[in-house]
Amino acid sequence: MSDLNWNGNTEGRIKDMKYKKILKIKDWTEQEKGYIAGFIDGDGSIISQIVKDKTHRYKFYIRISLVFYQKSTSHWFILQLQKKFKPYGYVRKRGVMSEFVIVEKGAVKLILEELYPYFILKKNLCRLVLEILKDLEEVETNADFLKVCEKVDKTANYTYSKNRKITSDFVKNDYFNSPVETSFKEADN
Amino acid sequence: MSDLNWNGNTEGRIKDMKYKKILKIKDWTEQEKGYIAGFIDGDGSIISQIVKDKTHRYKFYIRISLVFYQKSTSHWFILQLQKKFKPYGYVRKRGVMSEFVIVEKGAVKLILEELYPYFILKKNLCRLVLEILKDLEEVETNADFLKVCEKVDKTANYTYSKNRKITSDFVKNDYFNSPVETSFKEADN
Repeated sequence: MSDLNWNGNTEGRIKDMKYKKILKIKDWTEQEKGYIAGFIDGDGSIISQIVKDKTHRYKFYIRISLVFYQKSTSHWFILQLQKKFKPYGYVRKRGVMSEFVIVEKGAVKLILEELYPYFILKKNLCRLVLEILKDLEEVETNADFLKVCEKVDKTANYTYSKNRKITSDFVKNDYFNSPVETSFKEADN
Repeated sequence: MSDLNWNGNTEGRIKDMKYKKILKIKDWTEQEKGYIAGFIDGDGSIISQIVKDKTHRYKFYIRISLVFYQKSTSHWFILQLQKKFKPYGYVRKRGVMSEFVIVEKGAVKLILEELYPYFILKKNLCRLVLEILKDLEEVETNADFLKVCEKVDKTANYTYSKNRKITSDFVKNDYFNSPVETSFKEADN
Protein backbone atom coordinates (compact mmCIF):
# COMPACT_ATOMS: atom_id res chain seq x y z
CA MET A 1 0.00 0.00 0.00
CA SER A 2 2.90 2.32 -0.65
CA ASP A 3 1.35 3.94 -3.64
CA LEU A 4 -1.16 6.14 -1.82
CA ASN A 5 -1.26 8.63 -4.61
CA TRP A 6 -2.56 5.97 -6.93
CA ASN A 7 -4.85 4.48 -4.39
CA GLY A 8 -6.32 7.79 -3.46
CA ASN A 9 -7.64 6.93 0.01
CA THR A 10 -5.37 9.10 2.05
CA GLU A 11 -4.88 11.51 -0.77
CA GLY A 12 -8.60 12.19 -0.69
CA ARG A 13 -8.54 13.41 2.90
CA ILE A 14 -5.50 15.58 2.38
CA LYS A 15 -6.98 17.07 -0.76
CA ASP A 16 -10.25 17.84 1.06
CA MET A 17 -8.34 19.87 3.59
CA LYS A 18 -6.44 21.65 0.85
CA TYR A 19 -9.62 22.67 -0.96
CA LYS A 20 -11.29 23.82 2.23
CA LYS A 21 -8.32 26.01 2.98
CA ILE A 22 -8.48 27.69 -0.42
CA LEU A 23 -12.19 27.89 -1.17
CA LYS A 24 -13.78 29.19 2.01
CA ILE A 25 -17.32 28.33 1.03
CA LYS A 26 -18.05 27.43 4.65
CA ASP A 27 -17.79 31.13 5.47
CA TRP A 28 -20.27 32.21 2.83
CA THR A 29 -23.47 33.72 4.20
CA GLU A 30 -26.73 31.79 4.21
CA GLN A 31 -27.89 34.21 1.53
CA GLU A 32 -24.92 33.40 -0.71
CA LYS A 33 -25.24 29.65 -0.30
CA GLY A 34 -28.99 29.85 -0.86
CA TYR A 35 -28.49 31.98 -3.96
CA ILE A 36 -25.94 29.67 -5.59
CA ALA A 37 -28.03 26.58 -4.79
CA GLY A 38 -31.12 28.29 -6.18
CA PHE A 39 -29.24 29.34 -9.28
CA ILE A 40 -27.90 25.83 -9.89
CA ASP A 41 -31.35 24.35 -9.23
CA GLY A 42 -32.77 26.75 -11.79
CA ASP A 43 -30.23 26.88 -14.54
CA GLY A 44 -27.10 25.03 -13.52
CA SER A 45 -25.90 21.49 -14.09
CA ILE A 46 -24.19 18.85 -12.03
CA ILE A 47 -22.84 16.52 -14.68
CA SER A 48 -21.08 13.19 -14.31
CA GLN A 49 -19.67 11.41 -17.33
CA ILE A 50 -17.57 8.39 -18.12
CA VAL A 51 -14.74 9.47 -20.38
CA LYS A 52 -12.54 7.13 -22.41
CA ASP A 53 -8.86 7.74 -21.84
CA LYS A 54 -6.28 5.04 -22.44
CA THR A 55 -3.69 6.76 -20.29
CA HIS A 56 -5.93 6.37 -17.26
CA ARG A 57 -5.56 3.47 -14.90
CA TYR A 58 -9.01 2.05 -15.66
CA LYS A 59 -8.92 3.13 -19.32
CA PHE A 60 -11.78 5.46 -18.50
CA TYR A 61 -12.21 8.14 -15.95
CA ILE A 62 -15.17 9.91 -14.38
CA ARG A 63 -15.54 13.58 -15.13
CA ILE A 64 -17.68 15.57 -12.73
CA SER A 65 -18.60 19.10 -13.79
CA LEU A 66 -20.50 21.84 -12.07
CA VAL A 67 -21.71 24.20 -14.78
CA PHE A 68 -23.33 27.62 -14.70
CA TYR A 69 -24.80 28.92 -17.97
CA GLN A 70 -25.67 32.43 -18.99
CA LYS A 71 -26.24 34.37 -22.21
CA SER A 72 -23.02 36.08 -23.19
CA THR A 73 -24.76 39.44 -22.86
CA SER A 74 -24.45 38.75 -19.13
CA HIS A 75 -20.88 37.52 -19.34
CA TRP A 76 -20.04 39.82 -16.40
CA PHE A 77 -22.09 37.52 -14.19
CA ILE A 78 -20.06 34.50 -15.29
CA LEU A 79 -16.88 36.39 -14.43
CA GLN A 80 -18.35 37.28 -11.05
CA LEU A 81 -18.98 33.58 -10.40
CA GLN A 82 -15.43 32.78 -11.40
CA LYS A 83 -14.18 35.31 -8.87
CA LYS A 84 -16.42 33.81 -6.22
CA PHE A 85 -15.04 30.30 -6.77
CA LYS A 86 -11.47 31.40 -7.38
CA PRO A 87 -9.09 29.71 -8.12
CA TYR A 88 -11.32 26.89 -9.34
CA GLY A 89 -13.21 26.58 -12.58
CA TYR A 90 -12.81 28.15 -15.98
CA VAL A 91 -14.89 30.32 -18.26
CA ARG A 92 -15.78 29.53 -21.84
CA LYS A 93 -17.96 31.02 -24.53
CA ARG A 94 -19.99 28.82 -26.81
CA GLY A 95 -21.79 30.88 -29.41
CA VAL A 96 -24.18 33.21 -27.61
CA MET A 97 -23.72 31.36 -24.34
CA SER A 98 -21.15 31.77 -21.61
CA GLU A 99 -20.32 29.04 -19.16
CA PHE A 100 -18.47 28.77 -15.91
CA VAL A 101 -17.30 25.21 -15.33
CA ILE A 102 -15.68 23.61 -12.31
CA VAL A 103 -14.16 20.16 -12.84
CA GLU A 104 -11.60 19.93 -10.05
CA LYS A 105 -13.07 17.00 -8.10
CA GLY A 106 -11.94 18.27 -4.70
CA ALA A 107 -13.53 21.66 -5.33
CA VAL A 108 -16.76 20.17 -6.67
CA LYS A 109 -16.94 17.85 -3.67
CA LEU A 110 -16.47 20.70 -1.22
CA ILE A 111 -19.06 22.86 -2.98
CA LEU A 112 -21.65 20.08 -3.21
CA GLU A 113 -21.13 19.05 0.42
CA GLU A 114 -21.66 22.62 1.55
CA LEU A 115 -24.63 23.34 -0.71
CA TYR A 116 -26.35 19.99 -0.21
CA PRO A 117 -28.74 21.28 2.48
CA TYR A 118 -29.65 24.23 0.25
CA PHE A 119 -30.61 22.32 -2.88
CA ILE A 120 -34.22 21.42 -3.50
CA LEU A 121 -34.57 20.30 -7.12
CA LYS A 122 -31.11 18.80 -7.50
CA LYS A 123 -30.81 17.44 -3.96
CA ASN A 124 -30.98 13.76 -4.94
CA LEU A 125 -28.60 14.31 -7.84
CA CYS A 126 -26.22 16.13 -5.51
CA ARG A 127 -26.29 13.23 -3.05
CA LEU A 128 -25.59 10.69 -5.80
CA VAL A 129 -22.70 12.71 -7.23
CA LEU A 130 -21.22 13.08 -3.74
CA GLU A 131 -21.40 9.29 -3.40
CA ILE A 132 -19.61 8.94 -6.72
CA LEU A 133 -16.90 11.34 -5.62
CA LYS A 134 -16.44 9.46 -2.37
CA ASP A 135 -16.48 6.04 -4.05
CA LEU A 136 -13.87 7.18 -6.54
CA GLU A 137 -11.45 7.73 -3.69
CA GLU A 138 -11.84 4.09 -2.67
CA VAL A 139 -11.56 2.47 -6.09
CA GLU A 140 -8.82 -0.15 -6.24
CA THR A 141 -9.90 -2.56 -8.96
CA ASN A 142 -11.63 -2.56 -12.32
CA ALA A 143 -14.65 -4.06 -10.55
CA ASP A 144 -14.73 -1.15 -8.09
CA PHE A 145 -14.48 1.28 -10.96
CA LEU A 146 -17.35 -0.45 -12.78
CA LYS A 147 -19.55 -0.01 -9.73
CA VAL A 148 -18.88 3.70 -9.79
CA CYS A 149 -19.73 3.72 -13.50
CA GLU A 150 -23.10 2.19 -12.63
CA LYS A 151 -23.76 5.06 -10.27
CA VAL A 152 -22.86 7.47 -13.05
CA ASP A 153 -25.49 5.73 -15.20
CA LYS A 154 -28.01 6.37 -12.44
CA THR A 155 -27.48 10.12 -12.53
CA ALA A 156 -29.29 10.10 -15.88
CA ASN A 157 -32.50 9.60 -13.87
CA TYR A 158 -32.07 13.09 -12.47
CA THR A 159 -30.86 14.92 -15.55
CA TYR A 160 -32.24 15.55 -18.98
CA SER A 161 -29.13 14.35 -20.79
CA LYS A 162 -30.19 12.58 -23.94
CA ASN A 163 -27.63 10.29 -25.43
CA ARG A 164 -25.02 8.98 -23.14
CA LYS A 165 -22.58 7.13 -25.32
CA ILE A 166 -20.39 5.71 -22.60
CA THR A 167 -22.32 3.82 -19.95
CA SER A 168 -21.14 1.24 -17.43
CA ASP A 169 -22.07 -1.46 -19.98
CA PHE A 170 -19.77 0.15 -22.48
CA VAL A 171 -16.94 0.07 -19.94
CA LYS A 172 -17.75 -3.54 -18.99
CA ASN A 173 -17.66 -4.69 -22.59
CA ASP A 174 -14.41 -2.89 -23.11
CA TYR A 175 -12.90 -4.67 -20.12
CA PHE A 176 -14.14 -8.06 -21.31
CA ASN A 177 -13.02 -7.61 -24.87
CA SER A 178 -9.50 -6.53 -24.11
CA PRO A 179 -6.66 -8.56 -22.63
CA VAL A 180 -6.97 -8.54 -18.86
CA GLU A 181 -4.45 -6.22 -17.31
CA THR A 182 -3.81 -7.61 -13.91
CA SER A 183 -0.70 -5.59 -13.26
CA PHE A 184 -2.60 -2.88 -11.41
CA LYS A 185 -4.47 -5.33 -9.27
CA GLU A 186 -1.22 -6.99 -8.29
CA ALA A 187 0.29 -3.67 -7.49
CA ASP A 188 -2.60 -2.97 -5.09
CA ASN A 189 -2.17 -6.12 -3.05
CA MET B 1 -60.21 63.48 -5.62
CA SER B 2 -63.10 61.52 -4.22
CA ASP B 3 -62.49 58.49 -6.38
CA LEU B 4 -59.47 57.11 -4.58
CA ASN B 5 -60.15 53.61 -5.77
CA TRP B 6 -59.79 54.76 -9.34
CA ASN B 7 -56.91 56.97 -8.54
CA GLY B 8 -55.11 54.27 -6.73
CA ASN B 9 -52.84 56.38 -4.52
CA THR B 10 -54.28 55.49 -1.17
CA GLU B 11 -55.49 52.16 -2.35
CA GLY B 12 -51.89 51.23 -3.14
CA ARG B 13 -50.74 51.69 0.44
CA ILE B 14 -53.67 49.77 1.88
CA LYS B 15 -53.09 46.95 -0.58
CA ASP B 16 -49.39 46.79 0.34
CA MET B 17 -50.34 46.25 3.97
CA LYS B 18 -52.84 43.60 3.00
CA TYR B 19 -50.29 41.64 0.99
CA LYS B 20 -47.66 41.89 3.71
CA LYS B 21 -50.13 40.50 6.18
CA ILE B 22 -50.88 37.49 4.01
CA LEU B 23 -47.54 36.69 2.39
CA LYS B 24 -45.00 36.81 5.19
CA ILE B 25 -41.98 36.89 2.93
CA LYS B 26 -40.26 39.26 5.37
CA ASP B 27 -40.03 36.34 7.78
CA TRP B 28 -38.36 34.02 5.31
CA THR B 29 -34.81 33.04 6.18
CA GLU B 30 -31.82 34.53 4.36
CA GLN B 31 -31.35 31.10 2.84
CA GLU B 32 -34.89 31.03 1.47
CA LYS B 33 -34.73 34.53 0.04
CA GLY B 34 -31.32 33.83 -1.45
CA TYR B 35 -32.55 30.59 -2.97
CA ILE B 36 -35.63 32.10 -4.61
CA ALA B 37 -33.63 35.07 -5.94
CA GLY B 38 -30.97 32.71 -7.28
CA PHE B 39 -33.59 30.51 -8.87
CA ILE B 40 -35.31 33.48 -10.54
CA ASP B 41 -31.94 34.85 -11.68
CA GLY B 42 -31.17 31.45 -13.18
CA ASP B 43 -34.40 30.29 -14.68
CA GLY B 44 -37.23 32.63 -13.73
CA SER B 45 -38.76 35.61 -15.44
CA ILE B 46 -39.97 39.02 -14.36
CA ILE B 47 -42.20 40.02 -17.23
CA SER B 48 -43.99 43.30 -17.89
CA GLN B 49 -46.34 43.66 -20.82
CA ILE B 50 -48.79 46.17 -22.21
CA VAL B 51 -52.08 44.42 -22.80
CA LYS B 52 -54.94 45.80 -24.90
CA ASP B 53 -58.24 45.81 -23.05
CA LYS B 54 -61.06 48.16 -24.01
CA THR B 55 -62.76 47.76 -20.66
CA HIS B 56 -59.75 49.30 -18.93
CA ARG B 57 -59.59 52.96 -18.13
CA TYR B 58 -56.62 53.60 -20.43
CA LYS B 59 -57.73 51.04 -23.02
CA PHE B 60 -54.61 49.07 -22.12
CA TYR B 61 -53.25 47.77 -18.89
CA ILE B 62 -49.86 46.65 -17.65
CA ARG B 63 -49.48 43.03 -16.76
CA ILE B 64 -46.59 42.13 -14.49
CA SER B 65 -45.80 38.44 -14.08
CA LEU B 66 -43.29 36.62 -11.97
CA VAL B 67 -42.77 33.20 -13.57
CA PHE B 68 -40.97 30.06 -12.46
CA TYR B 69 -40.42 27.35 -15.07
CA GLN B 70 -39.68 23.70 -14.64
CA LYS B 71 -39.94 20.51 -16.65
CA SER B 72 -43.18 18.78 -15.76
CA THR B 73 -41.18 15.79 -14.52
CA SER B 74 -40.41 18.08 -11.56
CA HIS B 75 -43.96 19.35 -11.24
CA TRP B 76 -43.74 18.67 -7.48
CA PHE B 77 -41.29 21.55 -7.25
CA ILE B 78 -43.75 23.91 -8.91
CA LEU B 79 -46.41 22.83 -6.41
CA GLN B 80 -43.94 23.44 -3.59
CA LEU B 81 -43.39 26.98 -4.88
CA GLN B 82 -47.14 27.52 -5.02
CA LYS B 83 -47.41 26.48 -1.40
CA LYS B 84 -44.59 28.84 -0.47
CA PHE B 85 -46.32 31.82 -2.11
CA LYS B 86 -49.83 30.82 -1.09
CA PRO B 87 -52.44 32.20 -1.76
CA TYR B 88 -50.86 34.00 -4.71
CA GLY B 89 -50.05 32.69 -8.16
CA TYR B 90 -51.32 29.79 -10.18
CA VAL B 91 -49.85 26.69 -11.75
CA ARG B 92 -50.15 25.74 -15.38
CA LYS B 93 -48.77 23.03 -17.64
CA ARG B 94 -47.64 23.85 -21.15
CA GLY B 95 -46.54 20.73 -22.96
CA VAL B 96 -43.58 19.27 -21.12
CA MET B 97 -43.17 22.43 -19.04
CA SER B 98 -44.79 23.45 -15.78
CA GLU B 99 -45.05 27.05 -14.71
CA PHE B 100 -45.87 28.86 -11.53
CA VAL B 101 -47.06 32.39 -12.29
CA ILE B 102 -47.82 35.28 -9.96
CA VAL B 103 -49.65 38.23 -11.50
CA GLU B 104 -51.28 39.90 -8.50
CA LYS B 105 -49.50 43.25 -8.58
CA GLY B 106 -49.49 43.72 -4.80
CA ALA B 107 -47.93 40.29 -4.31
CA VAL B 108 -45.35 40.79 -7.06
CA LYS B 109 -44.44 44.18 -5.60
CA LEU B 110 -43.98 42.76 -2.13
CA ILE B 111 -41.88 39.86 -3.42
CA LEU B 112 -39.66 42.04 -5.61
CA GLU B 113 -39.17 44.62 -2.85
CA GLU B 114 -38.09 41.90 -0.47
CA LEU B 115 -35.87 40.02 -2.92
CA TYR B 116 -34.31 43.10 -4.52
CA PRO B 117 -31.15 42.98 -2.37
CA TYR B 118 -30.75 39.29 -3.21
CA PHE B 119 -30.89 39.53 -6.99
CA ILE B 120 -27.69 39.81 -8.98
CA LEU B 121 -28.51 39.16 -12.64
CA LYS B 122 -32.02 40.57 -12.59
CA LYS B 123 -31.36 43.39 -10.12
CA ASN B 124 -31.75 46.22 -12.65
CA LEU B 125 -34.82 44.63 -14.16
CA CYS B 126 -36.27 44.19 -10.68
CA ARG B 127 -35.69 47.87 -9.90
CA LEU B 128 -37.34 48.97 -13.15
CA VAL B 129 -40.36 46.75 -12.61
CA LEU B 130 -40.72 48.07 -9.05
CA GLU B 131 -40.71 51.60 -10.50
CA ILE B 132 -43.41 50.58 -12.95
CA LEU B 133 -45.51 49.13 -10.14
CA LYS B 134 -45.11 52.30 -8.09
CA ASP B 135 -45.78 54.59 -11.05
CA LEU B 136 -48.93 52.67 -11.87
CA GLU B 137 -50.36 53.64 -8.51
CA GLU B 138 -49.92 57.32 -9.37
CA VAL B 139 -51.29 57.27 -12.91
CA GLU B 140 -54.10 59.78 -13.39
CA THR B 141 -54.05 60.63 -17.08
CA ASN B 142 -53.41 58.99 -20.43
CA ALA B 143 -50.10 60.87 -20.50
CA ASP B 144 -49.10 59.37 -17.15
CA PHE B 145 -50.04 55.94 -18.42
CA LEU B 146 -47.98 56.45 -21.58
CA LYS B 147 -44.93 57.25 -19.45
CA VAL B 148 -45.35 53.95 -17.67
CA CYS B 149 -45.64 52.22 -21.03
CA GLU B 150 -42.28 53.72 -21.99
CA LYS B 151 -40.76 52.14 -18.89
CA VAL B 152 -42.29 48.83 -19.90
CA ASP B 153 -40.54 49.23 -23.27
CA LYS B 154 -37.28 49.69 -21.40
CA THR B 155 -37.57 46.34 -19.65
CA ALA B 156 -36.84 44.76 -23.03
CA ASN B 157 -33.22 45.84 -22.49
CA TYR B 158 -33.00 43.38 -19.63
CA THR B 159 -34.94 40.47 -21.05
CA TYR B 160 -34.63 38.27 -24.07
CA SER B 161 -38.18 38.78 -25.22
CA LYS B 162 -38.23 38.87 -28.99
CA ASN B 163 -41.27 40.45 -30.53
CA ARG B 164 -43.16 42.83 -28.39
CA LYS B 165 -46.27 43.72 -30.33
CA ILE B 166 -47.64 46.36 -28.02
CA THR B 167 -45.13 49.08 -27.21
CA SER B 168 -45.66 52.62 -25.89
CA ASP B 169 -45.70 53.80 -29.51
CA PHE B 170 -48.54 51.43 -30.23
CA VAL B 171 -50.49 52.85 -27.28
CA LYS B 172 -49.68 56.43 -28.32
CA ASN B 173 -50.89 55.86 -31.86
CA ASP B 174 -54.02 54.28 -30.53
CA TYR B 175 -54.68 57.32 -28.34
CA PHE B 176 -54.10 59.74 -31.21
CA ASN B 177 -56.19 57.84 -33.70
CA SER B 178 -59.24 57.50 -31.53
CA PRO B 179 -61.61 60.23 -30.30
CA VAL B 180 -60.13 61.85 -27.20
CA GLU B 181 -61.88 60.69 -24.08
CA THR B 182 -61.54 63.49 -21.58
CA SER B 183 -64.15 62.19 -19.22
CA PHE B 184 -61.59 60.46 -17.01
CA LYS B 185 -59.32 63.47 -16.86
CA GLU B 186 -62.21 65.64 -15.82
CA ALA B 187 -63.24 63.20 -13.19
CA ASP B 188 -59.71 63.32 -11.75
CA ASN B 189 -59.66 67.08 -11.27
